[in-house]
Amino acid sequence: MRHMARARLEARQLWLDWADGGSDAFPYIWLRDTDPAGFHPRTGERVFDLTSVPLDLAPEAARIEDEALVLDWPGDAAPSRFDLNWLRENRPGRRRPDPAHVPASSWRGDLGAAGIPRARAADVAESDAALADWLRRSKAMGLSIVEGLADDVEAGCRIARRIGFLRETNFGVTFEVVSKPDPNNLAYTADALPLHTDLTNQELPPGWQFLHCLANEAEGGGSVFCDGVAVAEDLALEDPEGFELLASVDIPFRFHDAETDIRTRKTVIRRGEGGRVEEICFNAHLADILDIDPAIMPGYYAAYRRLMQMTRDPAYLVTLKLKAGEMVVFDNRRVLHGRAAFDPSTGFRHLRGCYVDRGEFDSRMRVLARAAARTEPV
Amino acid sequence: MRHMARARLEARQLWLDWADGGSDAFPYIWLRDTDPAGFHPRTGERVFDLTSVPLDLAPEAARIEDEALVLDWPGDAAPSRFDLNWLRENRPGRRRPDPAHVPASSWRGDLGAAGIPRARAADVAESDAALADWLRRSKAMGLSIVEGLADDVEAGCRIARRIGFLRETNFGVTFEVVSKPDPNNLAYTADALPLHTDLTNQELPPGWQFLHCLANEAEGGGSVFCDGVAVAEDLALEDPEGFELLASVDIPFRFHDAETDIRTRKTVIRRGEGGRVEEICFNAHLADILDIDPAIMPGYYAAYRRLMQMTRDPAYLVTLKLKAGEMVVFDNRRVLHGRAAFDPSTGFRHLRGCYVDRGEFDSRMRVLARAAARTEPV
Repeated sequence: MRHMARARLEARQLWLDWADGGSDAFPYIWLRDTDPAGFHPRTGERVFDLTSVPLDLAPEAARIEDEALVLDWPGDAAPSRFDLNWLRENRPGRRRPDPAHVPASSWRGDLGAAGIPRARAADVAESDAALADWLRRSKAMGLSIVEGLADDVEAGCRIARRIGFLRETNFGVTFEVVSKPDPNNLAYTADALPLHTDLTNQELPPGWQFLHCLANEAEGGGSVFCDGVAVAEDLALEDPEGFELLASVDIPFRFHDAETDIRTRKTVIRRGEGGRVEEICFNAHLADILDIDPAIMPGYYAAYRRLMQMTRDPAYLVTLKLKAGEMVVFDNRRVLHGRAAFDPSTGFRHLRGCYVDRGEFDSRMRVLARAAARTEPV
Repeated sequence: MRHMARARLEARQLWLDWADGGSDAFPYIWLRDTDPAGFHPRTGERVFDLTSVPLDLAPEAARIEDEALVLDWPGDAAPSRFDLNWLRENRPGRRRPDPAHVPASSWRGDLGAAGIPRARAADVAESDAALADWLRRSKAMGLSIVEGLADDVEAGCRIARRIGFLRETNFGVTFEVVSKPDPNNLAYTADALPLHTDLTNQELPPGWQFLHCLANEAEGGGSVFCDGVAVAEDLALEDPEGFELLASVDIPFRFHDAETDIRTRKTVIRRGEGGRVEEICFNAHLADILDIDPAIMPGYYAAYRRLMQMTRDPAYLVTLKLKAGEMVVFDNRRVLHGRAAFDPSTGFRHLRGCYVDRGEFDSRMRVLARAAARTEPV
């Protein structure tokens, strides 16, 4: 049988010429550091000590054997053996696939409430496949609704815990959005809440937010959502300079009360790899007094105010009135949320909220993908 | 009485010429957005709606009155009134002071165990002043020891909770570092653990770590600490190109077990404002297979291995053997920790650990500073 690759040795690296065309370079120091025998068989942690070999080490011999690359090292180190398929998939310069990577599918007002992905609480609770499917659809849109929750204050958090542990904040592990007929602070008014993301004053604002609707009997009180990725994408096209300011100038955020004073600086838009918008931090309530250079301040205010106007433009908004037994789930670092004014004299409104961070959400997607791969029909 | 400032109006901003020299520019849109009346009196949150005014608004009149700047706006908006001292302190372009800001005081091996700041558990538990003092000293060095803890597994976490709530991770809210005579995985061996920071695979690695020593009766098992800021500072001087690679190229980290698969990408060194080193993420166990461009890989490995060697160089290390009743406290995003090998047949070793994030730590410093200001003798 013809080998799938041929090895060529240079001074500091080895080339593999693949039988079906193309070549990849593998630095010797990478090969030594990446030898599968240098990772703990159970935890997968690296146990190989990089300082135990010189930087300019080179194998004494390399050969292809049973579709594996075998390297003989000087001294008494055991030979390294790499499966060729594995080497191709894990070659330097190639990002490994991530089951948690789902491209953001940006949406605007024409999505409509009917376009929001939905799942049944019982399915998500009982079936890993349903859970995986719901997480994937939620991640694409940054927003979904779970329906059929029990009339139990713990029902929403139970579903959130199917994903991972809850993210505690200075407001606790869970929080109650309850509007009182006799409001005693801002959070308890019946006023409209403009669109925002939560806790932008934290170094890491909470990732996924879960709002389980236990009662929504008042007139008004509809929920409003806006895809921050869509708004930022459009801003980048319509006002590239404004976008650049919001993505590069960090501004102060702050929340303080009797027991806390939590501050951070952030850009309103954060770009990730390839310049893709990965995060929106927008909360006019928590934005602290702007302290940026007065020379760029007028331009900054223009961009910031424009973004704010876009988050209130019906062209970007999906509105719906949550029903008791429904839970809205959204990526708080992407999708802005708000609520319409309501009339507290006409009925009771109670949402119970919690958060699970992006890290735990993505971890659950990966673990579920692993299990799914094992059970796939052959 | 002569006013402390004189106001000059331009088209889009106002200048204040201070009586003692110097002038500052205040854009009108900033003044409108920053009007103290636009913030909620109790929560301090901004309630003023920026979209309710045009970007190019300008006051109809400005005057200095009782050491305050008073602006009359067009339409029916109430005049804005700013205390002149407040304006000077909060002028655009000036960073407001932060009681949690303590410059990092970098240290090396010559600090010695005797140089580590210490506090008494009873003092920290009972006195806010002692707590504030301990936090300030801990923050400067990134490392301290609390002594005199009760022989109670909860004693360390009780002190941590004086600062803020505990940061949960996939290892739980607290964790037990227990070495067993019959180890069943890597964490339970009696081997030396090279210096590292914890959970570099998390988007936000835990901030402050608390390790309460309940027993340390085995031979060996000393703790080792290394100031990542000092190492990074020296690397920047000795190998600027290597420093730049570690501060600009992000690499993959990963932890996975049966229930989790948590991944992130990070630079090993993170710089903050003014280029100051703000964070070190260094954990060879959790560093995933390096996937960066093969063209920069040899240079990257050289820098990374050099940093690794520095973290093991006695010139940077402080070693000590924790005693039962002591708790070591360190900024896990700055100070690397490790342990010497020990002989489990000679005795029991048990540390109980937990984390409090930097955000909660800094918040507690600010709240304590507020209380201290109120009680200062006049």
